[in-house]
Amino acid sequence: MDRIKRTERLSAIARILTDAPNRIHNLGEFCELFGAAKSTLSEDIDLVGQALKHFDLGRLETVAGAAGGVRFRPLVGRERANGVLTALATRLEEPGRMLPGGFLYTSDVTAESDTAQRIGEILAQKYYDRQPDLVLTMETKGIPIALMTARALGVSLVIARRDSRAYEGSAVKINYMGGGDRIETMALARRAMKPGQRVLIVDDFMKGGGTLQGMVDMIREFQAEVVGVGVMIATRQPEKKLVEGAKALLILESFDKERGVAVVRPSAEFV
Amino acid sequence: MDRIKRTERLSAIARILTDAPNRIHNLGEFCELFGAAKSTLSEDIDLVGQALKHFDLGRLETVAGAAGGVRFRPLVGRERANGVLTALATRLEEPGRMLPGGFLYTSDVTAESDTAQRIGEILAQKYYDRQPDLVLTMETKGIPIALMTARALGVSLVIARRDSRAYEGSAVKINYMGGGDRIETMALARRAMKPGQRVLIVDDFMKGGGTLQGMVDMIREFQAEVVGVGVMIATRQPEKKLVEGAKALLILESFDKERGVAVVRPSAEFV
Repeated sequence: MDRIKRTERLSAIARILTDAPNRIHNLGEFCELFGAAKSTLSEDIDLVGQALKHFDLGRLETVAGAAGGVRFRPLVGRERANGVLTALATRLEEPGRMLPGGFLYTSDVTAESDTAQRIGEILAQKYYDRQPDLVLTMETKGIPIALMTARALGVSLVIARRDSRAYEGSAVKINYMGGGDRIETMALARRAMKPGQRVLIVDDFMKGGGTLQGMVDMIREFQAEVVGVGVMIATRQPEKKLVEGAKALLILESFDKERGVAVVRPSAEFV
Repeated sequence: MDRIKRTERLSAIARILTDAPNRIHNLGEFCELFGAAKSTLSEDIDLVGQALKHFDLGRLETVAGAAGGVRFRPLVGRERANGVLTALATRLEEPGRMLPGGFLYTSDVTAESDTAQRIGEILAQKYYDRQPDLVLTMETKGIPIALMTARALGVSLVIARRDSRAYEGSAVKINYMGGGDRIETMALARRAMKPGQRVLIVDDFMKGGGTLQGMVDMIREFQAEVVGVGVMIATRQPEKKLVEGAKALLILESFDKERGVAVVRPSAEFV
């Protein structure tokens, strides 16, 4: 085998680590791939970590112990997070997004893969320490950002449905208070969650918090544990939400009916 | 400013390019970030490209012209694609995945962010040359792989719904032939697609092809253009599908009712 140069190793290490956020890579894995000694690889990884940190492209962290190694977390610094959220708020204030019934059109924004990824990364960094095993969302609109949050955390996504489906197998069904005090149904495949699992709830929008509280109830039905609730955008009103302790990236302050636009600002919690 | 070393630049370049698949980055962007000359950056990018290629981690491509620059495509080589799809087929053959009514439980697999990403990358590489502007899927199960296909292609996702929703604004609704010859409804927000846009359809499962043909009809309603149809898994039977020219990563050959498992194999098209 040709000797692999440091320049080549660095590019490959940066790609491999950053492509699998929050997953622990054993040093031996790289030694084998590159045919290099552990000490050499340690130096390489330090160099990659310094570069990522310098340019606010995320952090490499060393994990000690038998199952240890190095992992990448796509941490977004305060300044960059502020830039992302301010740009997002500005887009959501564009004319034409206000819909009849006090709704805001956001589907185009949340389904952009790069925007969803940035939102997921900024949400995820609040919850690394809570060590979730799963991300739970309720179909449909929140799925892209929930998937990208799960990607940043290196865990799986679980999707609750409006009704049980033949291709999901047996399911647990619960009722919850939806918008406008309607009773709604939520279903989750019985095999989707196990007792004791630590679950982060993610959704795109919170007004009363009924759907989120429904997900909390669902997680309890499975004897699993809620470790957090993160949403892209929460309305200022009502101040009191059905679910407690939710963190929102953006606050929908009000609708300016005269100008026909929403008033949105980044939440102090994230910037 | 401290002089930024090549080792530092390479890690950062690898991270920036691979994190935004199929997006063109201008060389000037990097010159500014690193305070280095274009010739130096050209050499850096060559080094990163060689390393990625060497370890089958994707390809860097130079795009000529005024809007030119360099882009990353997460191409997956034949051998690696075969490994991914064989492992996926084996997982789908696990006991317990067969459900009443001839359904296969796949939601856990498709909602794993890393699995969805690999599936999306392998699907996307068949369609780079068709230059899609959008990926379209129908809620709910196909969304994770459709989002990851859109990510690899560097385009947005659009999600068709089972019914129009107040928070999507005015919508186009069509009927299509669902499974079991039932007439089903599909709705898509009017603002989600523009005439002339090039659309790749992605879904997780194809049996008769009715839902996919519904998406083809929907795209025509918007005077947009279908550039391809890609699915994760297609059933062997019926051989004649309602939609033409769909490419599947996996073929569901049959259900082995005695052993209670599905028989799944990678499609020759992709390995």
